[in-house]
Amino acid sequence: MASARLHRRDLLAAGLALSLAPGVARAAPGRMVGFLSDFDEIDDAVAICRAVILSLAPEARLLDISHRVPPYDIVAGARLLAGSAPWLAADAVIVGVVDPGVGSIRRAIVARTRRGQSLVLPDNGLLTLLDAADPVVAAREIRNEAWMIGARRSSTFHGRDIFAPVAGRLARGDDWTGVGPAIDPRSLVRLDLAPPTIGPEGVRAQAIGTDGPYGNLILDLSAEAFAGLGWRFGDVVPLTVAGRPEPAPYVRTFSDVPEGAVLLYPDSRGRMSLALNMGDYAAARGVGAGAEVLIPRRRN
Amino acid sequence: MASARLHRRDLLAAGLALSLAPGVARAAPGRMVGFLSDFDEIDDAVAICRAVILSLAPEARLLDISHRVPPYDIVAGARLLAGSAPWLAADAVIVGVVDPGVGSIRRAIVARTRRGQSLVLPDNGLLTLLDAADPVVAAREIRNEAWMIGARRSSTFHGRDIFAPVAGRLARGDDWTGVGPAIDPRSLVRLDLAPPTIGPEGVRAQAIGTDGPYGNLILDLSAEAFAGLGWRFGDVVPLTVAGRPEPAPYVRTFSDVPEGAVLLYPDSRGRMSLALNMGDYAAARGVGAGAEVLIPRRRN
Amino acid sequence: MASARLHRRDLLAAGLALSLAPGVARAAPGRMVGFLSDFDEIDDAVAICRAVILSLAPEARLLDISHRVPPYDIVAGARLLAGSAPWLAADAVIVGVVDPGVGSIRRAIVARTRRGQSLVLPDNGLLTLLDAADPVVAAREIRNEAWMIGARRSSTFHGRDIFAPVAGRLARGDDWTGVGPAIDPRSLVRLDLAPPTIGPEGVRAQAIGTDGPYGNLILDLSAEAFAGLGWRFGDVVPLTVAGRPEPAPYVRTFSDVPEGAVLLYPDSRGRMSLALNMGDYAAARGVGAGAEVLIPRRRN
Repeated sequence: MASARLHRRDLLAAGLALSLAPGVARAAPGRMVGFLSDFDEIDDAVAICRAVILSLAPEARLLDISHRVPPYDIVAGARLLAGSAPWLAADAVIVGVVDPGVGSIRRAIVARTRRGQSLVLPDNGLLTLLDAADPVVAAREIRNEAWMIGARRSSTFHGRDIFAPVAGRLARGDDWTGVGPAIDPRSLVRLDLAPPTIGPEGVRAQAIGTDGPYGNLILDLSAEAFAGLGWRFGDVVPLTVAGRPEPAPYVRTFSDVPEGAVLLYPDSRGRMSLALNMGDYAAARGVGAGAEVLIPRRRN
Repeated sequence: MASARLHRRDLLAAGLALSLAPGVARAAPGRMVGFLSDFDEIDDAVAICRAVILSLAPEARLLDISHRVPPYDIVAGARLLAGSAPWLAADAVIVGVVDPGVGSIRRAIVARTRRGQSLVLPDNGLLTLLDAADPVVAAREIRNEAWMIGARRSSTFHGRDIFAPVAGRLARGDDWTGVGPAIDPRSLVRLDLAPPTIGPEGVRAQAIGTDGPYGNLILDLSAEAFAGLGWRFGDVVPLTVAGRPEPAPYVRTFSDVPEGAVLLYPDSRGRMSLALNMGDYAAARGVGAGAEVLIPRRRN
Repeated sequence: MASARLHRRDLLAAGLALSLAPGVARAAPGRMVGFLSDFDEIDDAVAICRAVILSLAPEARLLDISHRVPPYDIVAGARLLAGSAPWLAADAVIVGVVDPGVGSIRRAIVARTRRGQSLVLPDNGLLTLLDAADPVVAAREIRNEAWMIGARRSSTFHGRDIFAPVAGRLARGDDWTGVGPAIDPRSLVRLDLAPPTIGPEGVRAQAIGTDGPYGNLILDLSAEAFAGLGWRFGDVVPLTVAGRPEPAPYVRTFSDVPEGAVLLYPDSRGRMSLALNMGDYAAARGVGAGAEVLIPRRRN
């Protein structure tokens, strides 16, 4: 009898609570874990790291940044990390493994940025460019072997044995102070990736690569710095690319020039780039990372 | 005292409600979001779009369709979209970014199909083949800048700035009428991808590519259309492939011919294909997309 | 009035229940489903299988192992399966589709390992190496057409039509005995992948490939077996690689030798490997899978 009364009203109660607390009815989604490496996906190295992370943090939401950083290319890795991190959640954990020094004495670290992301990576400069935009405000060396798989010294697969398990523990909410001793953020390795300086005649920029499959040539010159040269949209800029003259209209986007024509434009990451509308600039001109691009000042 | 009574029975109540409403105890899984592009995964473009979608719809279930559509190849993109969409959930959001006209005046749209999927893509014909199978019943132009990131005109990365945020909002359940004005589904760009016509002598088909890594040559001829030519399983069909005679048994599957032998068969998507059992037909014959395949009628 | 009382106390009740039952407030994460294939991701084959699995098991957590097994290469597939499975959850479902015999009479099976994982794959030897580490204790042939999509015989896409739907049903918790009749685990196809035998003079090992993008040459010789030859860390081992002398220090890890120098080391999977510190051994020496490596016994 008591149970009959219970039945109706308590069902109603549960319904009420659920309709009033939608955040409860839907489980909070797990922590976002970005994953960047030079492992490629030919073999199972990426999968093993994913499995380690998900074993520790079953609800983590893995987000692959890229696994096709050229092997050991810390500068390329630093660019992808800095390019993608601002788009990941403010409390995301990001694992980055581009690590020519695996097995050496370079430190393994967790770095906290001002925005709140946790970077789990080797202390080899991989965070240089991200740090310039969102400074590391605290850091710890990964030393606690209880947070690792197996022994630290003997491993040649720190992605699996150190970085993935630490990322998994952070993703599930373990207190990060347990990972190892605090270290001075200023002591972290940073690469010298100074942008080219603008001189009285103009600037000597360099191509840092192409964007994915399209062949647009990305320069190490920000749109902001380029603005200092005085060019206006619509101007034809008398560039020299790899020693050859390349007059290119400075425009906002591809369709501002005819199909097949060259353009100089600020790309979606705020870097100056050279492209052919619907073509592959790098292939057509036979240039790539390292090509020198001279950009004069505008004379008026 | 009241609280003591509350305790026991209300726990019971909650248990009851949960056992009666299993959909509550387990959070409903988030909306499926398919993602197709020509970005490749060398750099971080795909990752940035994923992050934008997941920031807006943390519970979305991302499903990569492919990011290796050849750059700017709308026809190839249209085939992958039409090939995969029928397998995704009926309420899935699908983002497709193959976009030679980025920055131009081509429209950005959301199209609703009869089955219920929401396609978020440039209006450049990418939906041609899917529309033929599951017609678009309503469409809207993406015009509401509040649904975008940054300004529409200046962007060269509409994947990040327009398509991903719109997909994220649809995935989390925003009312799609907010995206922009309704447009006539008949006004959407459709490519002329008419299948070859069957003549009295037979049909002149064309290879549309190979399937993934295997080298099987896929024709622009459906198994249905082929049936009109009168061939029966077991017949050897006197094909001409790229000008060379290629007699090929018409069979159901690979193992119906010896290892290394040629076969003509209806593939898993309902298209006629040519293959070598356990071999790479395209590589062995030096043919690929665009190769002409003549198929005569059966004489009896 | 009754309703006013209900309101306050039942909200409290629901709160109580939720705080006492954290497993309810957070949904249990779905079953892990590993997916290995030779489909590559150029086209939509992988995506279609993912969609089939997620349609049946919306909460499954898909984990791509690799889709770049060389086409039809069962041995390479067997290595990736054995290499990754130990890192996946003990109750994971793993689908493996490397299948030169699609359409033939080879069986499609579900195999249960001692640890508890369910393997869904063609009975062609793909499980050989995993079985050696975590034996199959029960197996069933996939025969129940209600568990498949379409008809079994006519299909050339068993990934979509047989393996993915079976994996989806297992992931959502269907009783596996429904898939088809029990078969004797001893009847499953196993490949002859015997490791090289150690002789009185030493061992004739073989390269089984390189690790991802790095070019380290992996041998078919376990670190355990190598230990039988008597070498100690720091020794220079007078190897012969593809007929050429290659004296290589036997060390723990890359940084134990100078940049560019050769090393012989136990890799992270317990196999002996040859590498150049920060270089690409396979490219530098022009060797790859199949290369013969002679390792003598240590004389003391």
